Amino acid sequence: MGSVTASTTAQPTLRVAAFCGSLRKDSWHRGLIRAAEELCEESIPGLRIDHVDISGLPMVNPDLETDGGEGFPPPVEALRERVRAADCFLFASPEYNYSVTASLKNALDWASRGKRNCWADRAAAIVCAGGDFGGARASLHLRQIGVFLDLHFINKPELHIRAFAEPPKFDEEGNLIDAVTRERLKKVLLSLQALALRLQHNKDD
Amino acid sequence: MGSVTASTTAQPTLRVAAFCGSLRKDSWHRGLIRAAEELCEESIPGLRIDHVDISGLPMVNPDLETDGGEGFPPPVEALRERVRAADCFLFASPEYNYSVTASLKNALDWASRGKRNCWADRAAAIVCAGGDFGGARASLHLRQIGVFLDLHFINKPELHIRAFAEPPKFDEEGNLIDAVTRERLKKVLLSLQALALRLQHNKDD
Amino acid sequence: MGSVTASTTAQPTLRVAAFCGSLRKDSWHRGLIRAAEELCEESIPGLRIDHVDISGLPMVNPDLETDGGEGFPPPVEALRERVRAADCFLFASPEYNYSVTASLKNALDWASRGKRNCWADRAAAIVCAGGDFGGARASLHLRQIGVFLDLHFINKPELHIRAFAEPPKFDEEGNLIDAVTRERLKKVLLSLQALALRLQHNKDD
Amino acid sequence: MGSVTASTTAQPTLRVAAFCGSLRKDSWHRGLIRAAEELCEESIPGLRIDHVDISGLPMVNPDLETDGGEGFPPPVEALRERVRAADCFLFASPEYNYSVTASLKNALDWASRGKRNCWADRAAAIVCAGGDFGGARASLHLRQIGVFLDLHFINKPELHIRAFAEPPKFDEEGNLIDAVTRERLKKVLLSLQALALRLQHNKDD
Repeated sequence: MGSVTASTTAQPTLRVAAFCGSLRKDSWHRGLIRAAEELCEESIPGLRIDHVDISGLPMVNPDLETDGGEGFPPPVEALRERVRAADCFLFASPEYNYSVTASLKNALDWASRGKRNCWADRAAAIVCAGGDFGGARASLHLRQIGVFLDLHFINKPELHIRAFAEPPKFDEEGNLIDAVTRERLKKVLLSLQALALRLQHNKDD
Repeated sequence: MGSVTASTTAQPTLRVAAFCGSLRKDSWHRGLIRAAEELCEESIPGLRIDHVDISGLPMVNPDLETDGGEGFPPPVEALRERVRAADCFLFASPEYNYSVTASLKNALDWASRGKRNCWADRAAAIVCAGGDFGGARASLHLRQIGVFLDLHFINKPELHIRAFAEPPKFDEEGNLIDAVTRERLKKVLLSLQALALRLQHNKDD
Repeated sequence: MGSVTASTTAQPTLRVAAFCGSLRKDSWHRGLIRAAEELCEESIPGLRIDHVDISGLPMVNPDLETDGGEGFPPPVEALRERVRAADCFLFASPEYNYSVTASLKNALDWASRGKRNCWADRAAAIVCAGGDFGGARASLHLRQIGVFLDLHFINKPELHIRAFAEPPKFDEEGNLIDAVTRERLKKVLLSLQALALRLQHNKDD
Repeated sequence: MGSVTASTTAQPTLRVAAFCGSLRKDSWHRGLIRAAEELCEESIPGLRIDHVDISGLPMVNPDLETDGGEGFPPPVEALRERVRAADCFLFASPEYNYSVTASLKNALDWASRGKRNCWADRAAAIVCAGGDFGGARASLHLRQIGVFLDLHFINKPELHIRAFAEPPKFDEEGNLIDAVTRERLKKVLLSLQALALRLQHNKDD
């Protein structure tokens, strides 16, 4: 992880591992991650998005593990390495049936297995786009999952996007096209950065 | 669905579609479903378990749907048919990270998609085996998911099995070997049957 | 409780005990209960609202109980009697800090204490008015509480009213003035009635 | 709040405002707060417990507020002052019906009202004693409430005490008498202290 020392005046660049909970090619949530990448490059010094593709993972199955539960299939090992290397996390996921998607839950579970929970003790943020409630219920489930994963979610601002409310939020390819929502996304990223920096202070490991 | 009319004196046999949330070959939760099958055959007239294998499903991806979202890959169509044909549901799932498994969530989501939510308006029960809290938190998530799926869960009894507490609950192949837990499972099944029968009364469709 | 027998052709009138989670004099939620009373009188045969005032209860304190936990202060005894006498329940409560109000929780807890959980095995519905999400998160908490209370909540329709969205929903005295919302409230009441009737069939006690 | 500067070598003493969710005189949860006080005095330098009695508060009612919602009844003003002055929070509450008590919810709500949410942006920890699940479900509700209150809960360790399991955990007056549980409580306090210190770094206000 990026190190912070008393003598460093410049802040380190924090790596945000970003996960899209939808497998749809033109997913709004991939669009949100692309927008986050652009925002970081353009106007958030010290924050860089690392989009981790979770579409090729097998479904969690302890029978696929080796070495007494410490060896994993290659795509899972690759996921775990990316999670371990991150300074904080961004989850962009639709709500399916009032909860997170299976696809996202599968990645969350794989990277938590074995002796090393790869998520532990890092800051995280959630962004959702959906119908009337913008995915607010799925976010609450993800926060509960995060208790066991030992994630520290930002509380404010929350970004639950009403995707069908005017003005249009996404184009047909899932690109975020609404300036107000883009600004709200930027505030989420700044809040994530601020919490991640606070948590790095006096960190044990 | 099994029909109930005023003139029928004998109760119809209710079909319980049962789902195992673990893919592990020797899963305790498959063992719980096997025990439920035996209990129904031996001592619960009018109730029959139909174990629906969900291990071969693709991960939910709207891009796999055809006919404007009404056509599904063959294993998904097969799942949906089994769900539609059931009178009520039994979910046997471990808790991963304070929530349901991706495997179970994936099946729940596939059978809810399109114009027809295949789960709608049926009784359901949850059984879990786990560590200290026996999966109680995952059950709460499943209940919240069930609000949107329109499931009616039994409230009592709850069966959250502390799998590591004495006496042993399961053998190495995941078979339920504890008589007290078996009796508790039977009470869950009887409660599910009773609620399913009450709900069939005055049903619209 | 209203009895249902095979020979009865006319449906019994079901008593809905209704609870307002706000103590505010001009509460929207009292307005929702008044609107429910009117709807039942005007256009829902077989359903009658019984508004139970919970504003005068002491805070739950086991030290106030007598007779080994079976005796309660007079206002609590009165509450418990009204709850026991009801056929089903309507909860109209604002959301405070993503959960139910203390006032409502206090009533829920008092009527569940002692050997007799007065809520057991009845149908229930929730209506909320609030900000952006209309109290959706508080409803989820109330549903979880209802698992232990042994309530059977209707799943559809859900009524979470965005009180600040156009057109105006309530007047200054908390009266419901929006016809569309009134119609939605009526559908909630019809769904509650239907579930209550289904559940009365084959009831044990 | 206690200030942290780069030049300070000694850590400031953090004030932990502690809240008991039970009104019972011999409450286990008051016993847990007493034990926390002792632990801080004996063996946790830099942490001090400030027990805030919430038994005399009126039930939340916006009609009791003055000055356009910025004036509160005297006991509420006193509560709000103690909350504002704290560096972090300890909640010791029983679980009633799978959620927090009305008494605790009432205090949480009062101190969040008006323009100033007095809880904002502080670390918090929860300890519970109860039956089979030790209050684990109430903790999840409190965490969800904490999202809106902007609390940062420690994730590890969790302390859900099975109060009826051997060996005895509390005496008749609610005093914590089990050394193992006492040690677990100490670890909760150390974790709270560590998170509070990390969060104080780079704090905006």
